[in-house]
Amino acid sequence: MENYRLFLSAFCAAAITGSLSIIFVLIWVLHYREGLAWDGGSAEFNWHPVLMVAGLIFLQGTAIIIFRLPWTWACNKQVMKWIHACLHLLAFTLTVISTVAVFDFHNTAKIPNMYSLHSWLGIAAVILYCLQIVVGVVLYLIPITPVSWRAAFMPVHVFFGTLLFVGIISVALMGITEKLIFALKSPKYSQSPPEALFVNVLGVLLVAFGAIVVYTVTRVSWKRPNDQVLHSLHTDEVGEDNGKVGPKKTTTQDSEMRGNI
Amino acid sequence: MENYRLFLSAFCAAAITGSLSIIFVLIWVLHYREGLAWDGGSAEFNWHPVLMVAGLIFLQGTAIIIFRLPWTWACNKQVMKWIHACLHLLAFTLTVISTVAVFDFHNTAKIPNMYSLHSWLGIAAVILYCLQIVVGVVLYLIPITPVSWRAAFMPVHVFFGTLLFVGIISVALMGITEKLIFALKSPKYSQSPPEALFVNVLGVLLVAFGAIVVYTVTRVSWKRPNDQVLHSLHTDEVGEDNGKVGPKKTTTQDSEMRGNI
Repeated sequence: MENYRLFLSAFCAAAITGSLSIIFVLIWVLHYREGLAWDGGSAEFNWHPVLMVAGLIFLQGTAIIIFRLPWTWACNKQVMKWIHACLHLLAFTLTVISTVAVFDFHNTAKIPNMYSLHSWLGIAAVILYCLQIVVGVVLYLIPITPVSWRAAFMPVHVFFGTLLFVGIISVALMGITEKLIFALKSPKYSQSPPEALFVNVLGVLLVAFGAIVVYTVTRVSWKRPNDQVLHSLHTDEVGEDNGKVGPKKTTTQDSEMRGNI
Repeated sequence: MENYRLFLSAFCAAAITGSLSIIFVLIWVLHYREGLAWDGGSAEFNWHPVLMVAGLIFLQGTAIIIFRLPWTWACNKQVMKWIHACLHLLAFTLTVISTVAVFDFHNTAKIPNMYSLHSWLGIAAVILYCLQIVVGVVLYLIPITPVSWRAAFMPVHVFFGTLLFVGIISVALMGITEKLIFALKSPKYSQSPPEALFVNVLGVLLVAFGAIVVYTVTRVSWKRPNDQVLHSLHTDEVGEDNGKVGPKKTTTQDSEMRGNI
């Protein structure tokens, strides 16, 4: 792998900021807030930030960079694709529980659902994430999908996956903003009590984690060697994502290629 | 240009969502809020969203995709670089005025500055944006910078520029959330008055504009023809952004190459 030291630094930084984000959100709800429960009250709401940070941010980020880990390049690509899909499915499961928790809390407290920009963009992101998983499974895990389709759709899969990941971090930052304004009354958010500073740092950690993951995944020279070849075919011979790669790919046996795309 | 129809659709969509964002933010402050003034009050604060949407989002987005417009490919690259830099400088000027407006409003109303996550990430983004402009001018507009440095730093310049643009849209969404919660009292934000729905749509427009700009700028086949060659050199021969392109580039006369990087 090229510039292995830089990769290792980025990987460690992602692991540290990602783990710290989970620790920070746990300390927030367990130490500063009402803890965790499933009783329709604030302690049920608290599952929302915890599961979103752990699932839709940390697990999704891990799923995104898993193909970049050079220690896995000797593994069968099909196995890596299953691990990638399972991490996304686990993230989606936590997201569903997290969403139920917040609706349940709102309904109990007679707070309207879906009024804020956070909720509009959040629900759109969850629906698009679900769609991305379904399309990903159909195209890349079901063995009958033509290799030409897989290759043609790959840049779109990667682009929308990365965009969704970044969008979800933005939605989380809006959620943090909402919660701090609503929850901090005396002293208020504007008086910067320790909880406000602590949760602001959580927001900074999420941004740092997101930036490192996106940097790692968009650096072409850190792709799996086979994927670098595919990127070069897309970029130089037929344009990056034009859907015209079929004829080129089908000159090789589908069965040989399918495992690698 | 490859897939010109798709490019044209993306370009029109960016122009429409970007222009609509400016119209929406103007209607917000002029129709729903206190208008625009420079008096230390709410009307002075209103310059903040207007100038940020017009400058740091619309003008920055335009500066980012300007190299992708095929109608400009016949123009001298040096001229395009000056237009790119001037758009960024204009965006930065509006940003400074916008930031002064919000500090002025806070100071007059005795509201603390820099307590929210929006302000932390916002000020960090403005500082990094300033740094990005300074480094960009030094590297790409001062004619003595070695071509090898320009080529080596280009992927970093593009990555951080795009990341900053996305980050700034996130910060704007947090700002919208804050303002709607603070400003809407009776009826409250949670009661979804017309202003709340209207400004939520503004948030959706900003996300759509950001997504289209990022899609346009990351599609390698839509780069200027010379830049596609550079991308291919980076990707296939020496890795995308490893800083080792010097010897390869210096085989060509610096004076010939400099205009193109």
